[in-house]
Amino acid sequence: MADSKIESMSSAGAGNEVSVGGLRIGASAPLAVIAGPCAIENEHMLRETARQVIKYGAGMIRGGAFKPRTSPYSFQGLGLPGLKMLHRVGRELGVPVVSEVMDSGDVEVMAEYVDVLQVGARNMQNFPLLKKLGTIDKPVVLKRGLAATIEEWLLAAEYIMVGGNKKVILCERGIRTHERWTRNTLDLSAVAVVKSRSNLPVIVDPSHATGYTHLVAPMAKAAVAAGADGLMIEVHPCPENAMSDGQQSLTPEQFREMMAEVSRVAAAVGRDVV
Amino acid sequence: MADSKIESMSSAGAGNEVSVGGLRIGASAPLAVIAGPCAIENEHMLRETARQVIKYGAGMIRGGAFKPRTSPYSFQGLGLPGLKMLHRVGRELGVPVVSEVMDSGDVEVMAEYVDVLQVGARNMQNFPLLKKLGTIDKPVVLKRGLAATIEEWLLAAEYIMVGGNKKVILCERGIRTHERWTRNTLDLSAVAVVKSRSNLPVIVDPSHATGYTHLVAPMAKAAVAAGADGLMIEVHPCPENAMSDGQQSLTPEQFREMMAEVSRVAAAVGRDVV
Amino acid sequence: MADSKIESMSSAGAGNEVSVGGLRIGASAPLAVIAGPCAIENEHMLRETARQVIKYGAGMIRGGAFKPRTSPYSFQGLGLPGLKMLHRVGRELGVPVVSEVMDSGDVEVMAEYVDVLQVGARNMQNFPLLKKLGTIDKPVVLKRGLAATIEEWLLAAEYIMVGGNKKVILCERGIRTHERWTRNTLDLSAVAVVKSRSNLPVIVDPSHATGYTHLVAPMAKAAVAAGADGLMIEVHPCPENAMSDGQQSLTPEQFREMMAEVSRVAAAVGRDVV
Amino acid sequence: MADSKIESMSSAGAGNEVSVGGLRIGASAPLAVIAGPCAIENEHMLRETARQVIKYGAGMIRGGAFKPRTSPYSFQGLGLPGLKMLHRVGRELGVPVVSEVMDSGDVEVMAEYVDVLQVGARNMQNFPLLKKLGTIDKPVVLKRGLAATIEEWLLAAEYIMVGGNKKVILCERGIRTHERWTRNTLDLSAVAVVKSRSNLPVIVDPSHATGYTHLVAPMAKAAVAAGADGLMIEVHPCPENAMSDGQQSLTPEQFREMMAEVSRVAAAVGRDVV
Repeated sequence: MADSKIESMSSAGAGNEVSVGGLRIGASAPLAVIAGPCAIENEHMLRETARQVIKYGAGMIRGGAFKPRTSPYSFQGLGLPGLKMLHRVGRELGVPVVSEVMDSGDVEVMAEYVDVLQVGARNMQNFPLLKKLGTIDKPVVLKRGLAATIEEWLLAAEYIMVGGNKKVILCERGIRTHERWTRNTLDLSAVAVVKSRSNLPVIVDPSHATGYTHLVAPMAKAAVAAGADGLMIEVHPCPENAMSDGQQSLTPEQFREMMAEVSRVAAAVGRDVV
Repeated sequence: MADSKIESMSSAGAGNEVSVGGLRIGASAPLAVIAGPCAIENEHMLRETARQVIKYGAGMIRGGAFKPRTSPYSFQGLGLPGLKMLHRVGRELGVPVVSEVMDSGDVEVMAEYVDVLQVGARNMQNFPLLKKLGTIDKPVVLKRGLAATIEEWLLAAEYIMVGGNKKVILCERGIRTHERWTRNTLDLSAVAVVKSRSNLPVIVDPSHATGYTHLVAPMAKAAVAAGADGLMIEVHPCPENAMSDGQQSLTPEQFREMMAEVSRVAAAVGRDVV
Repeated sequence: MADSKIESMSSAGAGNEVSVGGLRIGASAPLAVIAGPCAIENEHMLRETARQVIKYGAGMIRGGAFKPRTSPYSFQGLGLPGLKMLHRVGRELGVPVVSEVMDSGDVEVMAEYVDVLQVGARNMQNFPLLKKLGTIDKPVVLKRGLAATIEEWLLAAEYIMVGGNKKVILCERGIRTHERWTRNTLDLSAVAVVKSRSNLPVIVDPSHATGYTHLVAPMAKAAVAAGADGLMIEVHPCPENAMSDGQQSLTPEQFREMMAEVSRVAAAVGRDVV
Repeated sequence: MADSKIESMSSAGAGNEVSVGGLRIGASAPLAVIAGPCAIENEHMLRETARQVIKYGAGMIRGGAFKPRTSPYSFQGLGLPGLKMLHRVGRELGVPVVSEVMDSGDVEVMAEYVDVLQVGARNMQNFPLLKKLGTIDKPVVLKRGLAATIEEWLLAAEYIMVGGNKKVILCERGIRTHERWTRNTLDLSAVAVVKSRSNLPVIVDPSHATGYTHLVAPMAKAAVAAGADGLMIEVHPCPENAMSDGQQSLTPEQFREMMAEVSRVAAAVGRDVV
């Protein structure tokens, strides 16, 4: 068992908190809320969405430029131009931005334009990518793989930390099970398990996990009650026209309502929302 | 797809609420908390445990007399004498009692001694048992099977309701997945899905789902935040000596602490705890 | 771990072979082939199907009288009249018959009419039923549950054997996974595992496992190559009109072709087909 | 559904057969057997193992130089020096060699030294890697991911083929399920499904799928009976000292025995073994 190694790493240095710009993520920090569209479609849409989610409580903006899509015939994202839009919008509005990196060869260019690099579920065990991320000085959001055990997820985090980069934020986003009325099965007990085995911050993405708009708010509240340090939420100004994942995106107005409910639950478990 | 059938049944008659003695379970009722030992070991232990959990907020007592155990060489429960103990303790303390029924041939005798009959995960598709339960006038807690989809779970409820007994309470208790650091994977999104597809009450059993004491309180809070109408919690005066499932039982003191935390979350989502 | 118990039971008494009428099932016996319709629809159809599958190599006839159906609104089987038809057809054609029992209260009547009692996947852990089956002197086919581990399956067999009935035949019929292009995932490695951990006979049901006609023959051959002691195959004279599971039934002619292919594989692994 | 796309791609160009040196892999070709150690540990061991497996019927040699390991603290492979050893041994013995590539940035150097590039289960949806492999003119073995549906697997193959490289060989190596007595669950019905939906060659790796030496031969035979076009088998001269995966490696002598058994099954389903 690699347990002892996991424990020693996470207690030695990998801290309770990861800081991104002025934002802190961790057990003793306020709830971190990352929101934005699944894919960046154009700069105007991104800016308007960002403006609204910030107004309603988001502290960081997400947006995909390089999109991992199951089929090669689906929209693959805007690429570098999308990344530059995200960078501009983040600077303009004064918030950090996060986007997904899919290849070790893209780490350097991503690190130029985004504040936090995200590793998607499909790449949780892309070890060359993880090793490369261990050499940079930017926070990494590490999503749990669809078939990954919690142990494997923590060991994937080790691949980054062993290279020197301790700024790892875990993100639970559902595992694949037999259930067919949700996109994946959100494993909130993983949040509590991670809290007892590691001191890495852990956030939850109820949008990808559930796959349906009406399930996002209940699961966001449940995640916070379970002890999650943050949320990652897909928001789109017009979900029915989204180029990807519209079915699970909130409108800005739905996001506002969700934040009001989430804030009450956060207060009940003793956590601030900025 | 059997969807239309499910919808029509649940909206026609199967009500928002199930009443058990003075206790109501459902969307507009206070949070229902059922607690007690996994297995009834002796009357003294049962009475003392019951007394304490009632003091700390439980409204119903659970205790297994007929235990479904994976191995035939494990403790199989006290049987009918255990049932009578449960009945006496419930009457003495003035609270309804719930216990598991495993066979259609036992329904009548169970119905004499307990207020609510529970169908365990292994029997969710024991159709002769479900049909028999459709003929009695007592509430039934129907646990979700380890490999059951939500659709199959609702259809199992139909097997009871089509016989005339509309008093079905669903209970999510974890599904079986690849994860090995929890006993099962608690699927809290199922609570939100059930709420959107049916009007049956749904409660959550975080004890069996997680399998570990330290995970029970976080998941109880998460369940309430997700919209659960109640909780079923294993409590044992001395978990390390329990004849079954000690690893996941709370002490009465831990139960008291959990209830304090749960009450705050319940209030945050607008639900009373009696 | 209950392993030592499993080992000791299966090596002490539970033999290499189960005999049913003149048919033997086990490691040193010829391949046992059980075939027939999913549900008994009428006596004429049953007799004609039986006649043909016997001609093409089946040694035992299967047919459901009490059907476990996911929805209470689906055809539930003919019940006792169906059982009597099965009994008559078996006697007439001189072959043993097998049918599913779902409730401990039905064991006695089933035992009057059928030669082998089958426990379906949903009832693998219906312990009162298993215990009752331990008291009779007829072979039992024990199907693996959809979420059952191999260990749990062997322990379920123990529930029968500990009562005195050592005539248990295990049947692998697929487990539930994330894959959606097959009905279940046939776990043929379970056959090899069972062979190394127990000396109970093990057969395979590729019809329920795969759910599609065109996958039955390849999986039947694979099962025999993996060491299975027998096969259980759904055959219907007119699958498109079947009252249940038509999509996975072979026509008698397809069964004939499958048997020719299976025989060659059986010979290649040193096993006869009667 | 992307089905129509999958069909059109696979029928248009992606051929029945992939040729590697003199070896052909596909439905009308002899059974292709790829064997060798999990990881290349030194040149002497590699050469001796290769010599023996070729003598017993292997047509291609496998050996890992870059090893994807769950923990960063496990042996990560010899890297480029290992690759060069594999190349030398292959040329010396006159057989093609296959090794795993984990990163798009390594494709070019890998292509210099190996005849077939393998994509491991963890990288099945590493899209930048797949796209890069679409630009080279070497065959690719694409292993199925642990949580991948067959549909996703075929779409991953499309990512390679859409770039121009039609030489894709699918490899089933087990999916992750709840079963704990095997490393993964080998899904042999996937072989039959792939054969009915695509014309790509499909091989099976029973070593990784089962995780135990004694299960390899039964599953190899079952794979061939199910219609697999080839096998990938781990062989190590001294499994108990292997630097990775010793528990599932055959000795050369066990490989010889397995090949004798496999040949008989192959003949029974009308397939030659070279």
